Amino acid sequence: MALPASASKPLAKPQASLDTLANLLKADLEQVNRLIVERMQSPVVLIPQLAGHIVAAGGKRLRPMLTLAASRMCGYGGERHIALAASVEFIHTATLLHDDVVDASGLRRGLATANAVWGNKPSVLVGDFLFSRAFELMVQDGSLRILQILSHAAAVIAEGEVLQLVTANDTSTNEADYLDVIGSKTAALFAAASWIGAVLGGRPTEEEEALDAFGRNLGIAFQLVDDMLDYSAREAELGKSIGDDFRDGKITLPVVLAYRAGSETERAFWRRTLEEQEQGETDFAHAIELFHRHGSLRLTAERARHYAELARFALTPFGDCAEKRALDEAVDFCIARGH
Amino acid sequence: MALPASASKPLAKPQASLDTLANLLKADLEQVNRLIVERMQSPVVLIPQLAGHIVAAGGKRLRPMLTLAASRMCGYGGERHIALAASVEFIHTATLLHDDVVDASGLRRGLATANAVWGNKPSVLVGDFLFSRAFELMVQDGSLRILQILSHAAAVIAEGEVLQLVTANDTSTNEADYLDVIGSKTAALFAAASWIGAVLGGRPTEEEEALDAFGRNLGIAFQLVDDMLDYSAREAELGKSIGDDFRDGKITLPVVLAYRAGSETERAFWRRTLEEQEQGETDFAHAIELFHRHGSLRLTAERARHYAELARFALTPFGDCAEKRALDEAVDFCIARGH
Repeated sequence: MALPASASKPLAKPQASLDTLANLLKADLEQVNRLIVERMQSPVVLIPQLAGHIVAAGGKRLRPMLTLAASRMCGYGGERHIALAASVEFIHTATLLHDDVVDASGLRRGLATANAVWGNKPSVLVGDFLFSRAFELMVQDGSLRILQILSHAAAVIAEGEVLQLVTANDTSTNEADYLDVIGSKTAALFAAASWIGAVLGGRPTEEEEALDAFGRNLGIAFQLVDDMLDYSAREAELGKSIGDDFRDGKITLPVVLAYRAGSETERAFWRRTLEEQEQGETDFAHAIELFHRHGSLRLTAERARHYAELARFALTPFGDCAEKRALDEAVDFCIARGH
Repeated sequence: MALPASASKPLAKPQASLDTLANLLKADLEQVNRLIVERMQSPVVLIPQLAGHIVAAGGKRLRPMLTLAASRMCGYGGERHIALAASVEFIHTATLLHDDVVDASGLRRGLATANAVWGNKPSVLVGDFLFSRAFELMVQDGSLRILQILSHAAAVIAEGEVLQLVTANDTSTNEADYLDVIGSKTAALFAAASWIGAVLGGRPTEEEEALDAFGRNLGIAFQLVDDMLDYSAREAELGKSIGDDFRDGKITLPVVLAYRAGSETERAFWRRTLEEQEQGETDFAHAIELFHRHGSLRLTAERARHYAELARFALTPFGDCAEKRALDEAVDFCIARGH
């Protein structure tokens, strides 16, 4: 469970999962997975090896599921959503490969990261390959509108990643700066993945905007919970190392809130551990203690719930259907998840 | 001068330069440069800072000039070639940024590399940003045909880079393997940059193929000379460190040829220095001595001349014009260059 001990009420239905969505989209998702495996092939065997390690290891496939569900919810009956969902997953995977290099992470989805196994060099280059493949898939689809949405999202993601790097180790980062970072690095792809469903369905502008807003707010909620989990999850459940953000001096919302509420002594602690990166054995535990003192994880959870509610509200224009109900449950999952 | 001492005849007119091409395309090139600076802007200031370091430091702009000259030679009279040339340069720049991270290079175009100044992390991420910007420019242009050519080239480049990584340190690499690597990592972008000129000009398939072949062969010649220069250039002239390939254990054509012709003792030398990466102070000089013994640099220069002639021949279908003459001189430059 992701709930901090001090949370006053549960984040959402604790049993919410992505299973409803995954079951509903089972046939489509299988096609997406087949296409992913097919398109990561290359005569250069290290490419499918390394890409397979991260792609086939099986993340949640949340982003491609957004494309699939949004398309169906928008009444789209064709097959183009398959390649576009694969393209979205390739962009995500390329980003993960580069992220792990940048963060020097050792564990992701319960497995050693590609950079830990093969080194940084192939991770950078295979990321580039997957990114190019994503574009090839989109170009094959042939919609300039969708190409525009996704290529812009890709640029915004990269911008967000650089911004995160710039704000890392900077304890003067405020909540707005932080929201800028995650709005770009995480929420932009959630938004684009959802938005293109309305384009495929040929829906009016308001519904495109509604799905853009849905994805964006869901992405922010998702990332806020991610940041909480990095301090509060059980490592085995999370499938990646906890404390990574702390070790890297990443300024996430719990830190922003604890720093703002903290005494001068506490601020000195944050500056020493995150800015100067001088960390002793007990510092991670002390950070969590400070979060509890100021309710920083609880407040972060509240923010996540707020954005989740905005995401849910954005679905209002769409009539009741199985996809809408499954997306609604995915919103619950994103804030209740322990991994 | 790039000529190895043992070269039996000059590579090409030694005074050949890119100036004729650059002067002919001056107005277009200025527009390309303006657009490059405009499109690398971002509210995240580190992005234009770092991108500016490499983009504005001014490479030869050879690849965008291929797009500009090919378009004009094909009778294209519009303005679309400007954005596409900028897009080609962005792809190239993104590749350079990632290359320098992978190779851990310290010097490029006579300046410290971005990774040497800012570290690897922003170089990876700003590379991703420029790559996305390249796609945004192409999408704005709106030709799916051109998007297809360039997105495929981008995937092939990444494949070639991974292949190079795999063959690095492997002295059993043969000439065909090596040509595969440079055909992908270097020649694919030269080919695509030239090819799209025929698409813009609305020329028949044979002329598209001719420009594709022109660029591909020119790219191979260019890279062969690059590999020679890494052993024979004067550092100040080259604007980057020499001996990088040797230090990194990269298997380039001179090594392939020297290894093939070498005695068992010599092969042991190559295995120790390039496979096992055990290098002493005199090893680089000894490598050059072995090249002279077997004429490896001269033979590499001969191969370069061969591909340059194929490039020149590929221009046959096009009528005489200033652009064609300037491209012809660019071919000479690529094999005679000392930087």
